[in-house]
Amino acid sequence: MKQTAMKQPKLDVFNQMESEVRSYCRSFQTVFNKASNALLWDKHHKAYIDFFAGAGALNYGHNNPRIREKLVQYLLEDGVTHSLDMATEAKERFLLQFNNLILKPRSMSYKVMFPGPTGTNAVESALKIARKVTGRTNIICFTNAFHGMSLGSLSATGNSFKRKGAGVTLGNTTFMPYDQYFGSSIDTAAMLEKMLDDPGSGIDKPAAVLLETLQGEGGLNSASQAWLQSIEKICRKHDMLLIVDDVQMGCGRTGSFFSFEDAKIEPDLICLSKSIGGYGLPMALTLIKPKYDQWEPGEHNGTFRGNNLGFVAASEALTYWSDPDFTSQISKKSKILHDFLARMAKTYPKEIQEVRGKGFIQGLAFVEPSHAGKLSAEAFERGVIMETSGPRDEVAKIMPPLTIEEKLLHEGLERIEEALQAMFSPAAAKGKVSVHA
Amino acid sequence: MKQTAMKQPKLDVFNQMESEVRSYCRSFQTVFNKASNALLWDKHHKAYIDFFAGAGALNYGHNNPRIREKLVQYLLEDGVTHSLDMATEAKERFLLQFNNLILKPRSMSYKVMFPGPTGTNAVESALKIARKVTGRTNIICFTNAFHGMSLGSLSATGNSFKRKGAGVTLGNTTFMPYDQYFGSSIDTAAMLEKMLDDPGSGIDKPAAVLLETLQGEGGLNSASQAWLQSIEKICRKHDMLLIVDDVQMGCGRTGSFFSFEDAKIEPDLICLSKSIGGYGLPMALTLIKPKYDQWEPGEHNGTFRGNNLGFVAASEALTYWSDPDFTSQISKKSKILHDFLARMAKTYPKEIQEVRGKGFIQGLAFVEPSHAGKLSAEAFERGVIMETSGPRDEVAKIMPPLTIEEKLLHEGLERIEEALQAMFSPAAAKGKVSVHA
Amino acid sequence: MKQTAMKQPKLDVFNQMESEVRSYCRSFQTVFNKASNALLWDKHHKAYIDFFAGAGALNYGHNNPRIREKLVQYLLEDGVTHSLDMATEAKERFLLQFNNLILKPRSMSYKVMFPGPTGTNAVESALKIARKVTGRTNIICFTNAFHGMSLGSLSATGNSFKRKGAGVTLGNTTFMPYDQYFGSSIDTAAMLEKMLDDPGSGIDKPAAVLLETLQGEGGLNSASQAWLQSIEKICRKHDMLLIVDDVQMGCGRTGSFFSFEDAKIEPDLICLSKSIGGYGLPMALTLIKPKYDQWEPGEHNGTFRGNNLGFVAASEALTYWSDPDFTSQISKKSKILHDFLARMAKTYPKEIQEVRGKGFIQGLAFVEPSHAGKLSAEAFERGVIMETSGPRDEVAKIMPPLTIEEKLLHEGLERIEEALQAMFSPAAAKGKVSVHA
Amino acid sequence: MKQTAMKQPKLDVFNQMESEVRSYCRSFQTVFNKASNALLWDKHHKAYIDFFAGAGALNYGHNNPRIREKLVQYLLEDGVTHSLDMATEAKERFLLQFNNLILKPRSMSYKVMFPGPTGTNAVESALKIARKVTGRTNIICFTNAFHGMSLGSLSATGNSFKRKGAGVTLGNTTFMPYDQYFGSSIDTAAMLEKMLDDPGSGIDKPAAVLLETLQGEGGLNSASQAWLQSIEKICRKHDMLLIVDDVQMGCGRTGSFFSFEDAKIEPDLICLSKSIGGYGLPMALTLIKPKYDQWEPGEHNGTFRGNNLGFVAASEALTYWSDPDFTSQISKKSKILHDFLARMAKTYPKEIQEVRGKGFIQGLAFVEPSHAGKLSAEAFERGVIMETSGPRDEVAKIMPPLTIEEKLLHEGLERIEEALQAMFSPAAAKGKVSVHA
Repeated sequence: MKQTAMKQPKLDVFNQMESEVRSYCRSFQTVFNKASNALLWDKHHKAYIDFFAGAGALNYGHNNPRIREKLVQYLLEDGVTHSLDMATEAKERFLLQFNNLILKPRSMSYKVMFPGPTGTNAVESALKIARKVTGRTNIICFTNAFHGMSLGSLSATGNSFKRKGAGVTLGNTTFMPYDQYFGSSIDTAAMLEKMLDDPGSGIDKPAAVLLETLQGEGGLNSASQAWLQSIEKICRKHDMLLIVDDVQMGCGRTGSFFSFEDAKIEPDLICLSKSIGGYGLPMALTLIKPKYDQWEPGEHNGTFRGNNLGFVAASEALTYWSDPDFTSQISKKSKILHDFLARMAKTYPKEIQEVRGKGFIQGLAFVEPSHAGKLSAEAFERGVIMETSGPRDEVAKIMPPLTIEEKLLHEGLERIEEALQAMFSPAAAKGKVSVHA
Repeated sequence: MKQTAMKQPKLDVFNQMESEVRSYCRSFQTVFNKASNALLWDKHHKAYIDFFAGAGALNYGHNNPRIREKLVQYLLEDGVTHSLDMATEAKERFLLQFNNLILKPRSMSYKVMFPGPTGTNAVESALKIARKVTGRTNIICFTNAFHGMSLGSLSATGNSFKRKGAGVTLGNTTFMPYDQYFGSSIDTAAMLEKMLDDPGSGIDKPAAVLLETLQGEGGLNSASQAWLQSIEKICRKHDMLLIVDDVQMGCGRTGSFFSFEDAKIEPDLICLSKSIGGYGLPMALTLIKPKYDQWEPGEHNGTFRGNNLGFVAASEALTYWSDPDFTSQISKKSKILHDFLARMAKTYPKEIQEVRGKGFIQGLAFVEPSHAGKLSAEAFERGVIMETSGPRDEVAKIMPPLTIEEKLLHEGLERIEEALQAMFSPAAAKGKVSVHA
Repeated sequence: MKQTAMKQPKLDVFNQMESEVRSYCRSFQTVFNKASNALLWDKHHKAYIDFFAGAGALNYGHNNPRIREKLVQYLLEDGVTHSLDMATEAKERFLLQFNNLILKPRSMSYKVMFPGPTGTNAVESALKIARKVTGRTNIICFTNAFHGMSLGSLSATGNSFKRKGAGVTLGNTTFMPYDQYFGSSIDTAAMLEKMLDDPGSGIDKPAAVLLETLQGEGGLNSASQAWLQSIEKICRKHDMLLIVDDVQMGCGRTGSFFSFEDAKIEPDLICLSKSIGGYGLPMALTLIKPKYDQWEPGEHNGTFRGNNLGFVAASEALTYWSDPDFTSQISKKSKILHDFLARMAKTYPKEIQEVRGKGFIQGLAFVEPSHAGKLSAEAFERGVIMETSGPRDEVAKIMPPLTIEEKLLHEGLERIEEALQAMFSPAAAKGKVSVHA
Repeated sequence: MKQTAMKQPKLDVFNQMESEVRSYCRSFQTVFNKASNALLWDKHHKAYIDFFAGAGALNYGHNNPRIREKLVQYLLEDGVTHSLDMATEAKERFLLQFNNLILKPRSMSYKVMFPGPTGTNAVESALKIARKVTGRTNIICFTNAFHGMSLGSLSATGNSFKRKGAGVTLGNTTFMPYDQYFGSSIDTAAMLEKMLDDPGSGIDKPAAVLLETLQGEGGLNSASQAWLQSIEKICRKHDMLLIVDDVQMGCGRTGSFFSFEDAKIEPDLICLSKSIGGYGLPMALTLIKPKYDQWEPGEHNGTFRGNNLGFVAASEALTYWSDPDFTSQISKKSKILHDFLARMAKTYPKEIQEVRGKGFIQGLAFVEPSHAGKLSAEAFERGVIMETSGPRDEVAKIMPPLTIEEKLLHEGLERIEEALQAMFSPAAAKGKVSVHA
C-alpha cells in the first residue's frame, strides 16, 4: 500500500530520525513493544490481531515459545552466533533437519546454499548460477512478479514504482504474461512457448524461468497446476532452468511446505527466506539441483550467511512439519478464511471483484482500488493489521500466522466484516470488538 | 582466500549437503560450537584465537556478555522480534542511542535508513538514492573496491572472479585508480578530476563517488586524508554525492567510530553494517544527509529491515562509544599490532613487501602471493584464525575483535611469528603454544 | 536466406579476398556487370529477371534512364558531390521536391533530417530523438521486426542470428507480438494496451513504438489498418511516439508512397531509405513531426549526410509520384502478382501454407521452410533472382522494381511456375524459358 | 564546432524544412553549387578554399576529374549501380586494385568486409567480430575518441554531448587515457597494462582495444610510435584484438595510406571509410586478419554494401598510391602547413597553446577555446572553410584535400594569417584577399 508522507506526533522519533522511505509505520501508526503468536501490543497496551505476519516471515507466529526456548538456551550456552560460512554445530543440525524433515520425505535432492540472509540474496544467487550453468543472460519473469530490491532481483520485479527506484535501466529479463493475465481463455504458457520456438521473436534464449506460484505482492494471482506444468515442460524443451521463488509462499503459506508440491513440478532452483528462519530472524536458502551446483568456492559470498540464531530457530521450526496435524490445521483455517471471504464477496458484489489467493494467503480484489487501503485502515482502527497488494494496491490481503488460534482468526475476520460494513453499509455497522487475549 | 574444493571426512554433512560455493569452511576445517570474545572452540574442545572477527562483524567480540544479557532479557519479555519497518520501542531506542552516542557528539546530521540487514543492501540503497537525487546513472568506484554481491553492489566491486559470477555485463560504474594505485608519485585524485573536467573523456557525468577509506578485501590499501579531501572537493565541484562504504571499516575498526573522522570529510551517504548489529546479528544502515532523503515511502523495501534483536544488541553496543577508554584501548592494541608487523617485515625483508592497513586491521603483503594463504594455514594449525585479502590473495590480514584481551593478542601474534619462522626459517621454529583461556 | 559457405571457382577473387560474411553472392553465384530496369546481366551475357530489386532499394529499376541523365549532367557540371551537411543547391531542390510532391499533397508536415545514408542510421536517429523528447529509454518493437545492424537498431530487430552477432546484451527494447502473431482471434494490440496500462507488468514506460507496417525480412507479415490504428491510439494514450520504419515498405512498395497511407495513421517519426535515393544510391531520411524536432545542432552527425548524387537522383525519382498512372500501374501489376501466387497456392495446397504480403511485395509461405530456399535456387537457374524471408527463411518473396514491364513480370512468374513444377510435380515441368530483352 | 541555432534569410528552405540537427550549414551560411579540387563555389559565384575536405572524405579533392571520367563512363555503360553484396565486375576490380596497390606492397594480408557505406558501420562490424572471436564484451577505448553515431560506435566515443544524444546508458566500453593525456611524464600505456594485469582493477577483460592513431575530432591528439607499439604489445599479452579506426586518418591523411605505417604495428582489424570512396561517395571497409574472419554468412548485413559507383571511384583513386610522387607531394605540403602553423604559434604565444596534428591534418590549439571558432568564422569571411575540433572546440583544424595546388594552399594560409591578425593584432590586419581560381 502506498502511503503519503504524513507527519504525526505519535512517532516523533521516527519522523525526525528515520528516512522518508519508511513505509508500513505510516499505515500502522503506533509503537509496538510486545508480541505473541498472532497478537501484537503497542506501548499503550492495545492489542492487535496480526493478519500480516511479517509479510510471511512469521508463519510460526511471533515469538514462538518452542523456538524461543532453544534460542535462549543457545545464547546462554555461548553457542557460536556469527560464523561467516564456517562450519558450526548449529548449521550442521539445521542441514540434517532440513534434509530429514523436508527433503527426504518429499524425495527431493538439492544442495543447500546460504546466499545471505534475505530473499533478494537468494534470488540474486539463483540468477547467477542459472546464468553460469547455461552461459546465457536472459531470464523469463512474469507480470506482477516481486523478487526483491537489489538490482538483479529488481530487474525481475514488475512493479514500476519499485523499478524506477533503481535509477538505472534494468535488463536481462523478459516479462511474459502470468497465468490468466489475459483472462481464462488465453493460454499464456502457449504464448511463451510460441515466442521461444520462434527464432525471430526477439526473445533472447533464456537461462531460466523465474516464477512465484502465487504472487503475494502482485495481487494474489495464483498459477494453476496445469500452467506450472506447462512452464516446466517448456523449460525442459528449451533447456532452461526453472526457478521457483518460494520466499513468501514457501514454509507452509499455501498449505504445504513448498508451494508447488501439489503441482508436482521439480524446480531446478528454489529460493526460500522469510519464514525459513522460524522466528522472524534473517535467513535465506537457495536450493540447487546437484547437477547445477557448479559454483566455485566463494564465487558468491556475504557476511551474514552464518546467522546461527537463525539455524537454531529454523531447526526447531522445521519440526512442525513432522506433525501431520500441523498441515491439517492450516487446511482447516484456510477454509474458514476462504468461506469468510466468499461470503463477503457475495455480500458486496458491486464493490468486491473477486476472492483471490490460496491456502493461508487470501484476499479481496476491489473494483475501486482505493477500497483495499481503506479496508486496511478501517481494520487497523478495529485492532487488525492487514496489508494491500497488487499493482494498484487493489487487493486486501489476509495472511495470519499459520499457528493462529482459531478463535482469534474468527475474531479478526469479524472485525474485518465490521470494517466492510462501515465502508459499504454504514447503517448496519456494529460497534468495535475488543480483543480477549 | 580462494580455496580448492577438497573433500575431507571431518565435514561430511557440509560436503554432502552444502553447495560448492561454501568457502571459509574449506580453510578452517573444523566444526565450531562455542565462542567468547576473541576465542572460538570447535567440537573437539580445541580453542582458536579469532583474528578474523567475522570479517569485521564482531568488533565487540563473540557473544559479548553485556549485549547477550539484553538479548536474553528481550526474548524472555516477548519483545517484538520481527516488525518489518513498523515502529517498535527497540527501534526507537536504537535511533535515540545512535543519535545521542554517535551523531550528536560528532555534530553529524543524517537521516537513518534501514535498507535490509546486510552491507550490500546498504550499498544498493545508497546507489539508488544517489541516482535518484542527481538523475544520473554513473558511479565512480575504485580499483580493488569491494561492495557486495548483489548486482548493484557487484557492479562497483573490482574483483574479476566475483564480477564474472554475475553472469551478465555489469555497468553504470567507472573504475578509477585508488589512492597510490600507480605509486606515490602519481596523484590519482588529480587524474579523476581531469577526466571529469574534460567533456570528451568518455566518463559519463557521475551521480556519486563510492569509496572505502581502507580497502579491507582489496588488499588493505589505505587512502590518505589528503586524497579523501581531494575526492570530497571533486564531488562538490562536480555536484556528485560522496558515498563512504564503512561496512567493514566503520564501528571502530580503524580506531574511530567512522573510518573517515580523522580526514574530516562529510560524506553525503554512509553505509554501515557488519558490527553495527553489535552481536554479529544481521543489520545495516544507510545514513543520508537530510537534503538527499528524497525517497518516496516504500520505494526501497525488504522483509528484514526490522530485526529487533539487532536493534537491542546495537543499542547496547553503542554504549561502548561513550567510554573514552574504549578508543584508547583500540589505539594501544593497534600499536602493538603495528609494531609486531613492522618487526616481521624487518625480519623477512625478502618475503614481506610491506605492512598494510591502519588501526585494528593491518596485515602483511607478501612478495610471493601464495605465502599469505600459507601463513593463514600455518596459523590455523597453531590455533589462530586469520584470512587473506587482495586481488591475488597476497595480503595476510589481522583484524581481531576490538575487545580482545591484550594478553590474547600477544599470544596470537606469537603464534603468527612461529608460523612465519616455520615458513621462512624452519630451523629456528619453536613448538606450538597452547591457549590459556 | 541463410547460406552455407561453399567455395566455387566462379567467384575466385571474392572467395579469396572478401570476408566470410558475404551472403547473397553465395545464392546468386555469378559476376554481374550490367543492369537495366528489371534485368541484370552477368559477365557471360546471361540475363536475369530481378525480382529482388536491391531488397527494395531499386523501386525505380536499375539505372533508371531519367535519373541517370540527371546524374551524368550533374557530374559533368561539377555539381558539389560531397557536402557533409552544408547547404547545396541539390539538397535545396530535393527538399522542395519532397515537400511539393510528397508532403504537401498528403497534407503532411514534417521536418526532414539527413541521418546518414542508410536505413539503420535513420532508425538510430529516430530512437535517439524519441528517447530525448520523452526522457525514457524503452522502445516497444515487434516479433520478427527488422530495423538494421548497428547496435541501436539491432536491439529492436527480432532475428536471433543477427542479434547474437552483436556480441553484447541488447536492451532498452520490449518485444511484443505483431498483428496476428497468435492467430486471428487474439488482438495483440489489446495485449500491448493491457500491459502498458498495468503498472505492475514489468514493461518500463516506453518512449516509442517502432514498427514496420509489413515485415519484409520477418516473413511478409502484414499489419491490418485496424491494428495500426489501435497502436496509434495506444501511443497517444500513453504519450509515446509512433515510429514507422518505412525503409523497405516506403517509396511505393506497398502501392502508395508511404506504406501507412491507407491506414490513415500519423506517425511522429518516419524512417526512409533504400529507394528514397532513386537510383540505388545510399541515402536516408528521418521525418520528424515539427514539435519533436528538439535536436541540438550536431547532436547526431555523420560524414555522408550530404550525398548530393543521392539528392539529384531522389529529386528526379520523386517526379514519378506526380503521375497518377504510376500508382495505378503498381496496383495493376500487384494484382497480377497476387493472382499468380493465389493460383500457385491453390495448385500446391499441401506445400504452400499461404500467400503473404501486399502491393508489390508478396510471396509464398511454405509448409516446409527449406522449400523457399529451394525455390529461390531453382528460380535462379531459370534466370530469376528472388529471395527468402521469415525467421526460418520459409517465405519466398517477390518484389520486382515497381517499373518492371508487364511482359517481363509475366515471364518471371512463368519461370517461377516452372520452378515450382520442377519441385513438386517434376513430371509436368516444362523446359526453360529464355529472356528476350 | 557547436553552433547556436540562428535563423537567417539566406537559407530559408533549409531553415524551414530541415531538422534543427543540421550543423555545418550554420557555420558556413551559404548555398554551394559547384566544386573542383580544393575550391567550392556558392550560388553567388563566390569561391571558397576548402581546408576541411569533407571532414576527410575528399582527400583526392572535389570532383577529381580522373575519377569523374570513370564514373560517367560506368553510368553511361549501364554498369550495375546497386548490387547488395552480390558479385559485380566493379567490386571484383576494386578488390584486385586494393590488393595489388595497397595490401601487397605493404605485405599485409587481410580479408575485406563491406560493412555498409559509412565509418560507423565499419566500427560496429569491427566491434562485433572482435566480441565474437574473443567471447568477451568489453572494449578499451580512449579519452576524446570519436568513432561514430550509432549506438555501438557511440559507446566508444568520448564526447559527452554526442553520448548524451544516445538517450540510453552506453556500456561495454572502458575509457582509458590516450597518449600524453596526463602530460608527457606519465606513460598511459603502462597504466592500461597495470589495470589489465590486476585481477581486482574492475576492468572486465576486454575483447579489443579500439583507437585512432591521431584523434581528428578529439583535438588532433597524436599517438607516438612508442605508445602504439606498447598498446600492440599489451594486446598480444592479454589476447585482445587491436582495432585501428583509420576512417579519418587513413587514405593518406597523415602521409601514408594507413596512418600506422610508420609505427610498424599490425592491427587485427582496420576500419576505413571517408576517402576510401575516392569521390566523396559513401563507402566503408573493415579489414580483418584472416584468422579472425569468423563471420557466418549474413551475420552482419546492410542494403548499401554494394555501392558500385563507390567501387569504380575507389579503384581509380587507389592508382594515386602507385605514384611515389603523390606521397612526396603530401609530405612537402604538410611541411608548408606545419611551418606556417609554427610561425603563427610563435607570433601569438599567449593566444596559441600549441601546434597539433601530423601530416596533412594539423591545427592550432587555443588557450581560450572560443578563439578556434572565431578563427573559423573569420576565415569563412575571407573565403576559407575550416573547422574546429577538441572537447571544447578549442582547436582550429586545417585539412585540405591532399591534391590541393601548392599555390592555393599558400593563399588559404595567408588568409588565415590575416584572420589571426584581425583577431589578435587588429591594427596590423590587411585587407581581404580575393581568390584567383
